[in-house]
Amino acid sequence: MSTASIDLNADLGEGFGRWHLTDDEQLLSVVTSANVACGFHAGDAVTMRRVCALAAERGVRIGAQVSYRDLAGFGRRAMDVPPEELAAEVAYQIGALEVFARAAGTRVSYVKPHGALYNRVVHDEDQARAVVEGVRLAGASLPLLGLPGSRLLETADRAGLPVVTEAFADRAYTEEGTLVPRGSEGAVITEADAVVERSLGMARFGVVTSQGGGEIAVRARSLCLHGDTPGAVDLARRVRARLESAGVRVEAFA
Amino acid sequence: MSTASIDLNADLGEGFGRWHLTDDEQLLSVVTSANVACGFHAGDAVTMRRVCALAAERGVRIGAQVSYRDLAGFGRRAMDVPPEELAAEVAYQIGALEVFARAAGTRVSYVKPHGALYNRVVHDEDQARAVVEGVRLAGASLPLLGLPGSRLLETADRAGLPVVTEAFADRAYTEEGTLVPRGSEGAVITEADAVVERSLGMARFGVVTSQGGGEIAVRARSLCLHGDTPGAVDLARRVRARLESAGVRVEAFA
Amino acid sequence: MSTASIDLNADLGEGFGRWHLTDDEQLLSVVTSANVACGFHAGDAVTMRRVCALAAERGVRIGAQVSYRDLAGFGRRAMDVPPEELAAEVAYQIGALEVFARAAGTRVSYVKPHGALYNRVVHDEDQARAVVEGVRLAGASLPLLGLPGSRLLETADRAGLPVVTEAFADRAYTEEGTLVPRGSEGAVITEADAVVERSLGMARFGVVTSQGGGEIAVRARSLCLHGDTPGAVDLARRVRARLESAGVRVEAFA
Amino acid sequence: MSTASIDLNADLGEGFGRWHLTDDEQLLSVVTSANVACGFHAGDAVTMRRVCALAAERGVRIGAQVSYRDLAGFGRRAMDVPPEELAAEVAYQIGALEVFARAAGTRVSYVKPHGALYNRVVHDEDQARAVVEGVRLAGASLPLLGLPGSRLLETADRAGLPVVTEAFADRAYTEEGTLVPRGSEGAVITEADAVVERSLGMARFGVVTSQGGGEIAVRARSLCLHGDTPGAVDLARRVRARLESAGVRVEAFA
Repeated sequence: MSTASIDLNADLGEGFGRWHLTDDEQLLSVVTSANVACGFHAGDAVTMRRVCALAAERGVRIGAQVSYRDLAGFGRRAMDVPPEELAAEVAYQIGALEVFARAAGTRVSYVKPHGALYNRVVHDEDQARAVVEGVRLAGASLPLLGLPGSRLLETADRAGLPVVTEAFADRAYTEEGTLVPRGSEGAVITEADAVVERSLGMARFGVVTSQGGGEIAVRARSLCLHGDTPGAVDLARRVRARLESAGVRVEAFA
Repeated sequence: MSTASIDLNADLGEGFGRWHLTDDEQLLSVVTSANVACGFHAGDAVTMRRVCALAAERGVRIGAQVSYRDLAGFGRRAMDVPPEELAAEVAYQIGALEVFARAAGTRVSYVKPHGALYNRVVHDEDQARAVVEGVRLAGASLPLLGLPGSRLLETADRAGLPVVTEAFADRAYTEEGTLVPRGSEGAVITEADAVVERSLGMARFGVVTSQGGGEIAVRARSLCLHGDTPGAVDLARRVRARLESAGVRVEAFA
Repeated sequence: MSTASIDLNADLGEGFGRWHLTDDEQLLSVVTSANVACGFHAGDAVTMRRVCALAAERGVRIGAQVSYRDLAGFGRRAMDVPPEELAAEVAYQIGALEVFARAAGTRVSYVKPHGALYNRVVHDEDQARAVVEGVRLAGASLPLLGLPGSRLLETADRAGLPVVTEAFADRAYTEEGTLVPRGSEGAVITEADAVVERSLGMARFGVVTSQGGGEIAVRARSLCLHGDTPGAVDLARRVRARLESAGVRVEAFA
Repeated sequence: MSTASIDLNADLGEGFGRWHLTDDEQLLSVVTSANVACGFHAGDAVTMRRVCALAAERGVRIGAQVSYRDLAGFGRRAMDVPPEELAAEVAYQIGALEVFARAAGTRVSYVKPHGALYNRVVHDEDQARAVVEGVRLAGASLPLLGLPGSRLLETADRAGLPVVTEAFADRAYTEEGTLVPRGSEGAVITEADAVVERSLGMARFGVVTSQGGGEIAVRARSLCLHGDTPGAVDLARRVRARLESAGVRVEAFA
């Protein structure tokens, strides 16, 4: 199977007030979809406004990166938020971001959960439903970006929302096609050349080498690049250049 | 001069999580405009959703009660927020509330600053401009609700936004028509009958007795009722009943 | 078995800024141990100071009611806080409260986890250890107040900290002596007379009638009274009066 | 006049959760006094613990860098916090830090206000008194570190607390010996050699060249070094090396 085109997404605007984290300006010259933090794990209003303006200027699509309310933990600590609260908090974040997307002449085009919420809705049906309800509350049929096979995408699909699958070129996969959990040996692939080649394999052929050594299928309409580590922007550039030189169209998902 | 109609506004949804403050359900049966807290001084997402749904159900207009980011101080502590930050924070709050207004089948229809921000933009030109910029960022020509003669309303007017003046039946006025500062003797009128009669004078004739004893003009398209004290709801009901029995139409401003 | 004396504890100072919840002044005339909120789920600095001063004045012992950092959820949403973070956050809260206890001429005398953290450390060994480490970080051999049989008390005991068991007169117990989970039918006993009688049984004889109807042993050096519901203070007074009239000494644990 | 010894202080631990700002480890090899953020403008509990442990290990004195409660604004936005609230919040922060200082085998040794609070208490008598009351609430006779001539130091002195004056080698001074306000032309001296030489003049002779070109006296027992800009650590090292090579003893104030 050959994939004609691929979307590249990354988390952006993940500073807060005095603190900066992601190199938003550089990343926006690489990715086609920007997951913009909405203030619950990161992302103050000034940053949200600036990132939306930059993204719009460069034709990068804006997505709401919704999170648990946890600045101190950067949204990385799973929380048993009751579904009613979670749905309302998701809608709140989308609405806040929508203002800045519109001010920049565009719209919020998709939703991607962040951190611990992202991991939770892979398997937690209640929270997955709450996220989907939050998106619907926000009043649009926004696509959900997430892991293939996750409860989130299943629930969104059943609810009639578009779903967009993503893969991680810098994460190891099991034979079954799931991510090797962070913390396990070899879970994160740090060798840049390997990440570049895995990106190409995922984008062009929909395959990747599993941790066991076999070739497995990876359904992904988007590749997630990371922007918060040293060298992250350079690696992202290399991935994009490699994809383009191999004839893969890098473009936002439809 | 006889005023044919008057709007009644009150602050609503001013709880946060486990804490409740305003009797939203009861107040929504009295007022015509609901200043809904947007999460910066009060107002969690669940409460915002609920209040918007109730307001819509009863035909009460929804306004964004925007504030400094100060949960610990309930937005009552003046802050030197740089204009760029203030504008973005105002827009953020309006956007978040808009989601719940739309989900309830209506829209945010006006903006009213809360607490210390309300007082600050009476005289602070920079912050007044920042609030107006925040409203414009939020993308609509929303009316600003505030004190007649305030920098906020002047700035909004110059920027082409509609302005709506309000008066306080439970506050003393100087001969010059400004509010006697809280903390000064007699600043707050606690006698219920007096509040009711002053409401009627303001709504019907646009006049009120000043602290000095003279009759002064009070331009006000809306009367602000308070909902966070014991007996507040009863007093609000009495005000409304008195206005209606005197032939004043109680209705949202156009 | 006859219990000569019992401690009565309740959560206090659970307002935040403008919001009030517990009737601190009244409860302090009933209980012998005050679980004072330390700012993470509730409890601003002014309230902490005031409650400590009142408690000291009345000879009520001050305990640190430590919580997850979650004002929006009132500490009632379980969080996967890494142990290192949890330990430091527990110590932080104890230290902050200690200032006000000392200013009032006394000391923090024990620690009791709040809400979701309380429930989590019943069975979660890692978090239980983190709480105990936090207490030790805070530099004193403070007793832990919690459920008999909980991981928290076991861990504290192994670490050489004193442990104090508590029981709930308004909660149903299983045959095995554990609490019937909230949300299950009959989990909370709302009939005041029943609560009073159960208190007496627990305090005097160390027994209570289980949900199944049998009499079971309840080891408890302290009874937890609730202060955040209407009628709570009256009920607390009745419990204390009944205990005293039956000859039970109501006094802080040693 | 020759100054035999000087203290060097810097702000440390000014990250929050996922965000880092100051190079704590490197700065602790240069300074003799560490102004540790206490959680209100920056500084999570894990960072506070770590910085205190490192400081104690290296014999660096620990001070409480107290701030307005304003994470979003990094404590840089002046706030009209009522004195009672400010005093309690100052005490709260000192208490929280004290836990980690003690756990590291030392104590909080002084207090320095941060950012907007620092600037405010130069001239605001009410807030200066509140800070002093907060320090006294925290139960010790801790020295206050601040600007010579500030209301803070005057108030502290009248209250019987020790005061320690500081100067800024990278800030321009007026003829009257006050700081040229940030934002004015030439307010911040960016040329490294100049900063080094000014440090020496201040430490050795108690003088500095004013913006007008004249030599003025600067009373300072401590020099404040900055740690949050690129090259800050290198510059701090150069300052210390220059002082030592000129025979100035770099040591914590008595």
